[in-house]
Parts: sequence; C-alpha cells; structure tokens
Amino acid sequence: MAKLTQGELDQALRDLPGWSVKNGMIVRTYRHDSFPEAIVFVSAVAQLAEQMNHHPDVDIRYSDVTLALVTHDQGGITRKDVSLAARIEGIRKKAEAHA
Amino acid sequence: MAKLTQGELDQALRDLPGWSVKNGMIVRTYRHDSFPEAIVFVSAVAQLAEQMNHHPDVDIRYSDVTLALVTHDQGGITRKDVSLAARIEGIRKKAEAHA
Repeated sequence: MAKLTQGELDQALRDLPGWSVKNGMIVRTYRHDSFPEAIVFVSAVAQLAEQMNHHPDVDIRYSDVTLALVTHDQGGITRKDVSLAARIEGIRKKAEAHA
Repeated sequence: MAKLTQGELDQALRDLPGWSVKNGMIVRTYRHDSFPEAIVFVSAVAQLAEQMNHHPDVDIRYSDVTLALVTHDQGGITRKDVSLAARIEGIRKKAEAHA
C-alpha cells in the first residue's frame, strides 16, 4: 500500500466530489439537518472504519461532521484512504435516498 | 445562565478532575482501550447532549475522544457546561465500574 502519486491522487479526487486535501489528509465535511442525524452518520462511518481497520479522524461540530483520512504507517494518502472515502460516500448517498 | 466568574470556574474544575480550560472552553480527553469503545462512549455522550440540548465539540482520534464545552450564546463557560461535564463523568465512571 504505497503513497499515491500526485497524478493518482488528482484522479481519485475527481471521483470524490466534496473531498479535498488538507494538511496531507483527504478531508470532507458532511452537513446534517440535526445533531442526532450527525451521530447516526458517525456510527455508520465507525462501523465501516472498524470493518476496514482504518479509522478516520472525526470532528463533530453540532450537525457538521468532518472526516480526515491518511495512512499513518505510510506517511501519506494511499488507496486505503480513497477506498474508505468512496465507501463513506456510499453511506451518505444511501441516507440521502431514504431522506 | 450567566458566564461563571473565575472563582466559580476554579471551584467547578476542582470537582471535575481531568477537565481544564483551553481556548475558552472546558476540555477533557477520554482514552479508551479500542475504537469501538470510543464510539460507544460518544453515543452515550450524544444522547445526554441531546437530552440537555447542549452539544459538546467532539474530536475522535482513534480511541481518544476529546470533548470541549462552552455556552456559545453567553460567549463563555456557564453552569450548563459544568453540569454536562459532570454528567459525562458519571457515564464514564459507570463504564469503568462495569469494565
């Protein structure tokens, strides 16, 4: 699991609208309509993170949840981060479809 | 619900070991043995926060959970913050007693 090259990272971000690079991590803030909805989202992300054994930094600010992903043992962003971000997008899309 | 005076704040913190003032908020980091345990703790805190209609900033860093409390509409720390912190300590003590 090597660090992505700049070209690979640019390509990956094209498939992850809303995500961007900040402080060497890929980051997105998800807004919710309420605090309980934000917590339901965090629980779903946590379950996925545990399954993948890859854990985002999570900052909860009322109903906004910011996730930040990096592969610490590689010192940078890898496919593992991109893959977890894509699966989180899947959770979000499913939640929106049910809303 | 007025801002606490420095004397009131000092007194409150004496009853909240582990909590301190940082950037104008009362703050504590709770360490856990695993990520799932950290998430269970966050869920319990969230339920309490919703009941009290007072929502801490929550930063999850793997199994460490940092909570920060301030009363935004008073521009400072009030009894509401101290009271939520005390109830969170209660959750934590209960979890430790069962561990």
